[in-house]
Amino acid sequence: MKKADIETPAVLIDADRLERNIRLMAEAAQRMGVALRPHFKTHKTIEIARMQLAAGAVGITCAKTTEAEVLIEAGVTDVFIANEVVGPAKVARLRELARRATTSVGIDDLAQAEPLAEAFAREGRPLAVLIEVDTGLGRCGLPPGQPVLALAEQVVRLRGLQLRGIFTHEGHVHRARTKAELEAMALAAGRAMVETAQLVRGHRLPCDVVSVGTTPAALITPTVPAVTEARPGSYVFYDRCHLRTWSATEEDLALTVLATVISRPARERVVVDAGTKVLSADHAGTRFDTFGLIRSHPDWRLAQANEEHGILAVPAGAEVAIGDRVELFPNHNCAVMNLADEVQVVRGEEVVARWRVAARGASR
Amino acid sequence: MKKADIETPAVLIDADRLERNIRLMAEAAQRMGVALRPHFKTHKTIEIARMQLAAGAVGITCAKTTEAEVLIEAGVTDVFIANEVVGPAKVARLRELARRATTSVGIDDLAQAEPLAEAFAREGRPLAVLIEVDTGLGRCGLPPGQPVLALAEQVVRLRGLQLRGIFTHEGHVHRARTKAELEAMALAAGRAMVETAQLVRGHRLPCDVVSVGTTPAALITPTVPAVTEARPGSYVFYDRCHLRTWSATEEDLALTVLATVISRPARERVVVDAGTKVLSADHAGTRFDTFGLIRSHPDWRLAQANEEHGILAVPAGAEVAIGDRVELFPNHNCAVMNLADEVQVVRGEEVVARWRVAARGASR
Repeated sequence: MKKADIETPAVLIDADRLERNIRLMAEAAQRMGVALRPHFKTHKTIEIARMQLAAGAVGITCAKTTEAEVLIEAGVTDVFIANEVVGPAKVARLRELARRATTSVGIDDLAQAEPLAEAFAREGRPLAVLIEVDTGLGRCGLPPGQPVLALAEQVVRLRGLQLRGIFTHEGHVHRARTKAELEAMALAAGRAMVETAQLVRGHRLPCDVVSVGTTPAALITPTVPAVTEARPGSYVFYDRCHLRTWSATEEDLALTVLATVISRPARERVVVDAGTKVLSADHAGTRFDTFGLIRSHPDWRLAQANEEHGILAVPAGAEVAIGDRVELFPNHNCAVMNLADEVQVVRGEEVVARWRVAARGASR
Repeated sequence: MKKADIETPAVLIDADRLERNIRLMAEAAQRMGVALRPHFKTHKTIEIARMQLAAGAVGITCAKTTEAEVLIEAGVTDVFIANEVVGPAKVARLRELARRATTSVGIDDLAQAEPLAEAFAREGRPLAVLIEVDTGLGRCGLPPGQPVLALAEQVVRLRGLQLRGIFTHEGHVHRARTKAELEAMALAAGRAMVETAQLVRGHRLPCDVVSVGTTPAALITPTVPAVTEARPGSYVFYDRCHLRTWSATEEDLALTVLATVISRPARERVVVDAGTKVLSADHAGTRFDTFGLIRSHPDWRLAQANEEHGILAVPAGAEVAIGDRVELFPNHNCAVMNLADEVQVVRGEEVVARWRVAARGASR
């Protein structure tokens, strides 16, 4: 099949760019001397996880137990759930998963650790846990240093758990206003992690893993000596967020949404058949003032989107007609993949594969 | 099963509220003397479409051919695609659909009408079309009056099409700053539609249907004499958008997202396991400054959301612990349903049904 035959709206993956992005990040991790454990959240696709493992990734990161189920069902043997796992249904899921593959999870409070410990005390081997550290994002995680040590001291007393180390998601680097500021934020996060690990180890507690991860800082934070692992996710496709964080150029963007012009009700207004049901509304009105960029048309604006409509503001003289096709670069590809049942993989003008987004909607 | 046993995150539908919302809108349409053709886009669920038809709806509205396929496959006999349908794959879908059920579509340009006419000239009966009128939204559609007449004159010459009337989505009423302004906008839209229909009929062209629709104006626009049909969609659940457009109170909101507290990293910060993968990011940063409301906690704020995390700003003394559950009212329920594979239907504390969101992701 040709790209021209794809029914719209459709999510396209540029195979050449995807392969290059995976290769370059694997090489960078090797150069920096850290293990690469890429995050599943961006692509949610088994085929891409396998490409990452083939390029040298030590395992896959995900955020939810249902994502881990998809990965382990597909044969992935080492999965880290970089998130707190709470509730009896999820503890039961985890127990099943840990019987089938090397499984580890995040904690930031004894209230998550104790039910896990109780469940895993009855299993043959303990559950591996990593303490989440908040290096500036302001989401989950303990402040670096003493609070982490205090939890580590409690965790090592719980028979069902094995403390493997600490992890952070330094996603606050997205807020940097300059490249220098981003670098400073990433390095500060890495140093806080290493100092915290040294504090924990100084008290004769285990802390083998010092794991960091976010694509805009993926070539920076892991350069701090004694960081052991990197968990970037978005680098497989990159997106508009990475153009503004100095971590990608348009030539790196591997995902587009293909859309058809369905109406041109005014000279300066063009409506396409891809709206927020395909693009998501992520970052529109916050990080960005539009719903995405338009490939090959830097002077057109994806000014508005409703569920089924993308509304482009174009110059009055723009040559574009009903039936024409446009390719859009979304604001946030993780959200786009969570809306897509499948993607079309293209190489030039050829469709070379269709991949199912196996973990779309896996949020439990 | 009890509500307390539902694994989170989950989308809950309050059965009592849903039934009441459906009944009240059906009664209102009857009182206003218009046919009710509710929009599928909000619920995407066969069970709810059947409830609407049982309450007197004349048919169902949707936006895409793949939604129409789901409806017609489920036995719905009259479907209006209130949108422009462009491209050979979609024309082929439409031809199949029109063989199985009464199907009509929107147009606003001869460039959409001609390929449809060509395809349907070879069918046993013509395809019913309605001309879309832009009464202020600024999306698709022709301006009221003369431009609609001009297109109508061209359409009636096309053998494969049957001109049934005109339709508008007066969604611009969401921009009203006062209830009086909203009423004036809705009535103006209704009058523009009726005047346009009179103009078309005055030229001896058919215009049986004068169709309007948007939930905030659902009790207003159809009161303009000679409007024949109403197409509200969101009224089945209402959402936060309808609280600010004077069309619902919190007691009408029939959809919530059930979430579990997974972390309380600071006294004033609580993190739940529902983020934008469940809630969507719709209207956050544009129409609203947060990602939703929190049921029973008007002083808590759903200040931030990432894919898997909802971050609540709470008073430092708030009594809330890891493992507690909260119910969230999303900004935009149509987007929530497009992310959910199924919903849990609850009556009080009982789960009375699980419904599949049959048309989730149907965007072609």
